Amino acid sequence: MKIQRINEEISLSRSVDSGTEEQRAIVQSIIEDVKTQGDEAVRKYTEAFDGIHLEQFAVSQEEINVAYTQIDTEMIAIIQEARDNIRDYHEHQLKASWMTTNENGTILGQKVTALDSVGLYVPGGTAAYPSSVLMNAVPASVAGVERIVMVSPPDKNGMIPPAVLVAANEAGITEIYKMGGAQAIAALAYGTESVKRVDKIVGPGNIFVALAKREVFGDVAIDMIAGPSEITVLADDSANANEVAADLLSQAEHDERAVSILVTTSESLANAVADEVTRQLELLPRKEIAAQSIATYGAIYIAGSMEQAIEVVNQLAPEHLEIMTANPFDLLGKIKHAGAIFLGRFSAEPVGDYFAGTNHVLPTNGTARFSSPLSVEDFQKKSSVIFYSQQAFEKNAKKIAAFARLEGLEAHARAIEERGANK
Amino acid sequence: MKIQRINEEISLSRSVDSGTEEQRAIVQSIIEDVKTQGDEAVRKYTEAFDGIHLEQFAVSQEEINVAYTQIDTEMIAIIQEARDNIRDYHEHQLKASWMTTNENGTILGQKVTALDSVGLYVPGGTAAYPSSVLMNAVPASVAGVERIVMVSPPDKNGMIPPAVLVAANEAGITEIYKMGGAQAIAALAYGTESVKRVDKIVGPGNIFVALAKREVFGDVAIDMIAGPSEITVLADDSANANEVAADLLSQAEHDERAVSILVTTSESLANAVADEVTRQLELLPRKEIAAQSIATYGAIYIAGSMEQAIEVVNQLAPEHLEIMTANPFDLLGKIKHAGAIFLGRFSAEPVGDYFAGTNHVLPTNGTARFSSPLSVEDFQKKSSVIFYSQQAFEKNAKKIAAFARLEGLEAHARAIEERGANK
Repeated sequence: MKIQRINEEISLSRSVDSGTEEQRAIVQSIIEDVKTQGDEAVRKYTEAFDGIHLEQFAVSQEEINVAYTQIDTEMIAIIQEARDNIRDYHEHQLKASWMTTNENGTILGQKVTALDSVGLYVPGGTAAYPSSVLMNAVPASVAGVERIVMVSPPDKNGMIPPAVLVAANEAGITEIYKMGGAQAIAALAYGTESVKRVDKIVGPGNIFVALAKREVFGDVAIDMIAGPSEITVLADDSANANEVAADLLSQAEHDERAVSILVTTSESLANAVADEVTRQLELLPRKEIAAQSIATYGAIYIAGSMEQAIEVVNQLAPEHLEIMTANPFDLLGKIKHAGAIFLGRFSAEPVGDYFAGTNHVLPTNGTARFSSPLSVEDFQKKSSVIFYSQQAFEKNAKKIAAFARLEGLEAHARAIEERGANK
Repeated sequence: MKIQRINEEISLSRSVDSGTEEQRAIVQSIIEDVKTQGDEAVRKYTEAFDGIHLEQFAVSQEEINVAYTQIDTEMIAIIQEARDNIRDYHEHQLKASWMTTNENGTILGQKVTALDSVGLYVPGGTAAYPSSVLMNAVPASVAGVERIVMVSPPDKNGMIPPAVLVAANEAGITEIYKMGGAQAIAALAYGTESVKRVDKIVGPGNIFVALAKREVFGDVAIDMIAGPSEITVLADDSANANEVAADLLSQAEHDERAVSILVTTSESLANAVADEVTRQLELLPRKEIAAQSIATYGAIYIAGSMEQAIEVVNQLAPEHLEIMTANPFDLLGKIKHAGAIFLGRFSAEPVGDYFAGTNHVLPTNGTARFSSPLSVEDFQKKSSVIFYSQQAFEKNAKKIAAFARLEGLEAHARAIEERGANK
């Protein structure tokens, strides 16, 4: 792993994959087909891309029952406990409607409402990610969304992995469809005979899914389009090199484009971590992926002081930040930009990925400068509420009309003057 | 104005103007030029589009002082009172960081931080909109954003309208630059010699500004891209036709594509409003615009019952909803989708546009189904905070490792097993 002293501005930003012209054209024509031909088009693309002909897209209760028999009872209990932790944490994010009142009769407020319906995309392929199902569905459920729909591409036998079905059922998802790719996004956005349209689409996917989400954005809401995952570890000489190395590698195994960075004030830790990464890497089943990620994007930065180290962290605005210093809480107030902050050596990133209750859908690629973890708020929206009594109105009518005229909007001024004692 | 009974699903959705290929190409090349040539490129485009050569883009304190002499003292006081009302309302939206603690030592929380910097685009042209400056800048200031930058195209004399400068100064904006169009958006997104880059860009603009915001989205955050404005009035036979008509026209004068709709249970009101619209329209200075909007998008729907009327309102999900019924608060709980809800005859839309304190930047084109008014939250972001004590860790380590292995992520499991008593 490269070790370097800090001597210039450091940024995480990698170019975002915005697809080729050809990919965009494919996605546009799939969406158009689903819009005009509905299920028939979804069926055609499912046959072409997933290699299976499906008459029925909906997953049956029977299939869910079978899934439960295929997962260890102990594992089901762990999924349930994780779900409960996620629910507990996210319940703190619930916002109430509120209002203010004034003696002159003015009432102003904000009415909070859940979205009516949400669609959750769950990728298929070799790895099944039940944790991702929980992280997306539980906040929607806590927000009060009545209709939570999941779509996921079927395998060649027309099946969805049992762990994903169990997680979906435990998260309170009531509609599950076997469809994937751009055709599934189009079905969620515009509806087909089988699937009623939804108001928002969330969840990760490959480049075709990402492009389709961009394409339907505006007609429905979408969540952020996530980039490859990152971790930054901020450590002093109290940190354990084995643990730091293991954490860096846990990020690197995700993806060749994942980023693992150590920022430390300790040269000896820097050297020890570099050695440990090399040693542990050899023992990993996904070592090709992890090695590629570490070689391309891995870095160890030695800072001259903790202040400089923190400055680097804020420049990076990492998705995951682990603070492994003697007194990690001392530094919390200084961290301005990070998706999730893990404090101390027992708060390893997988604690938050799976179990603690915080959300693992986090802003990547430096966007923690302006974005937040997925939360209950992403599934609620607000309406402003305005009530003026006659008294409040008459006190302010002239001022409001004057402001409208300052902007040249005469009909606005007249709408005021049509009313009340001024009339 | 067309009067019709409701007999099918009604939707506000109009196609969103996503620009021509040519417009997109122009915007891309302007952005590229500003990225590579900085101020020089901005200077070139300012000369080409705004007809003025500027050596210096920054507005000086002297120019602001002069602006104050050009605006009526009474008008300045109205702007200040509106700003105070907006600040009071938005202070209720401020979120605090929070945490939960558990006896086993677990601490989970959410750290709320303001964005470092925000850029506000203010359109030029004939109409100056100081209210829009307040509505965008005050929430950013309440959120705690340290650097609020405004850009606005100069007129042929290199000036920005005095009312806009006064509003900017009153809202606490400290940096103002004379630049507009795609070149200003690029300068905010990537920085030039004169302008340091910002983290988020907000504010309305023409199609070039909207396309430029879409283009830089991802590198910086942007607010929603607003469509033409809409009003829906929900009224029973207690409503006053003159007032309803005046309110519909106040929307229609904005834009030929503005939408003004009355939904009512009263046939006599429907007829009276149609007549009043015709009468009042003739008296408006912007009657060409308003007449065009009413002819194309105006509609009066007669509902068979208040329940049906409310259903229509929720289908429309209007930007502005006025409830002009005998007991408007009776209906508030039934409204699911609206940007802002104005209750009763003294809560005319201009009350909220200018003065009451709620935000006038609202979701348009049916997006109130999933979007919210501009708020303090748009200028803050959150970081998850996770602390596990050794006790909490050891209690859960095996479960976390098992979950990671269920997903095939061995390095995640090992990061857990590197630690604690399991080691």
